[in-house]
Amino acid sequence: MKLARFRVDGWESYGLVDGDHIKAIHGDIYSQYEITDASYPLSRVKLLPPTHPTAFWAVGLNYAAHIAHQEVALDGDRIREDASSFRPWQKGVNCLIGHEDTIILPAESDYVHYEGELVIVIGKPTRRVSPEDAPNYILGYTCANDVSSEGSWATDTSMWRRKSCDTFGPVGPWIETDIEPHSLDIITRLNGKEHDRGSTSGMIYDCYTTVSGISQYVTLNPGDIILTGAPGAVEQLSPGDVVEIEIPGIGTLRNPVSGETN
Amino acid sequence: MKLARFRVDGWESYGLVDGDHIKAIHGDIYSQYEITDASYPLSRVKLLPPTHPTAFWAVGLNYAAHIAHQEVALDGDRIREDASSFRPWQKGVNCLIGHEDTIILPAESDYVHYEGELVIVIGKPTRRVSPEDAPNYILGYTCANDVSSEGSWATDTSMWRRKSCDTFGPVGPWIETDIEPHSLDIITRLNGKEHDRGSTSGMIYDCYTTVSGISQYVTLNPGDIILTGAPGAVEQLSPGDVVEIEIPGIGTLRNPVSGETN
Repeated sequence: MKLARFRVDGWESYGLVDGDHIKAIHGDIYSQYEITDASYPLSRVKLLPPTHPTAFWAVGLNYAAHIAHQEVALDGDRIREDASSFRPWQKGVNCLIGHEDTIILPAESDYVHYEGELVIVIGKPTRRVSPEDAPNYILGYTCANDVSSEGSWATDTSMWRRKSCDTFGPVGPWIETDIEPHSLDIITRLNGKEHDRGSTSGMIYDCYTTVSGISQYVTLNPGDIILTGAPGAVEQLSPGDVVEIEIPGIGTLRNPVSGETN
Repeated sequence: MKLARFRVDGWESYGLVDGDHIKAIHGDIYSQYEITDASYPLSRVKLLPPTHPTAFWAVGLNYAAHIAHQEVALDGDRIREDASSFRPWQKGVNCLIGHEDTIILPAESDYVHYEGELVIVIGKPTRRVSPEDAPNYILGYTCANDVSSEGSWATDTSMWRRKSCDTFGPVGPWIETDIEPHSLDIITRLNGKEHDRGSTSGMIYDCYTTVSGISQYVTLNPGDIILTGAPGAVEQLSPGDVVEIEIPGIGTLRNPVSGETN
């Protein structure tokens, strides 16, 4: 089933997406809840980022084709070193936006690109779980665009501006709870044209290994999200672009792109 | 004044620390609140981490003496490179603990040290503020121990285990709202004996420059916390230790240290 967070008529709720409608949910999606009779056309509601995470984790350099692309685009030795072991990192929760929200290119940045990725959504407090047990701690999956500013910011080792500028974290459109995560296509379109297509079958650290690995040292909380890496090449974004990340079986995350105007 | 978050008799509240008592606060410490007549001896309450941050930022390598210490202890070239520009980074909110909570040394780590630091507490939504205007966005200051595992984890460039293992972020005991932040002593004691003493007058990026700098790209939210760097040398922690970070004018953050037992 598809769980979305949405706003309509000035209030916010979780809901169950059913075709072209959404039914409001009463209760806590991580424990007990009921689906109510309040139903709205999807066209009438604003979809919000699907959770309020306490942490926004990411695993970069998780597909061979993406590592090869980044080795050419950036410092090859550094990329090979970073890809040589399991090194999750954190985007700032500040950068989280939802479906149809605008990605804003910072005035000071000379290069911003998209990265279409599968996202893990945590469902329970998770600490020191095994890969075999990890599926029991995952609520579901959604799509993300790990918007990144490389160019002159590529040498910022802490990646704070490269990865966490406001609006650099589109996630959505909703959480699919009933899907097997390791044989999904990830399709990225720029202005309606397909630019990249990969399969989650190519992950180096699969979803269960990733959740297990982070949880050996860090408690993950319900609603926390984990990006699992871009599968292939990436391309620059410009003001006026529209970028779509589609994962068939989950949905399509679409975001317009704008320059900064303030 | 000193604002603390505390638990007593099964409920949690903010409070005003007044000598050896704490008076419960009704309302939102970031906007409007009242101090109530409900007063408790400090000895009866459990002090909690002073905020629920959406982000736990840090500025490392912010004092010349600490940079010199780390150049010797770690890879000198990398430390000099990282110290050559303003590079804030994020600890995980997962690692936040309060005064008197236990720092747990991970079973897999071969070396963990303390870092006593001044902490900035954000009071308002903060975006693109100038250094001159930054004080208006700061609620106050507190103490932190930026617990870090170097040793064999020192090469983890994302610093995820080095800096964000559960319990690696003691912050407290409370927020002092009326203090000038740039001429404070930071004293670190291990098992009652002073091991390091520095002054915030030695910061490379002062508190206002730090808030302004992060806010050029990132929205800071009320309750967000920013570590401002350790002033000097650091030392290894062992099970059974007690580590104290005292900043006269603010207070003393004390935490026992334990090995992992699970």
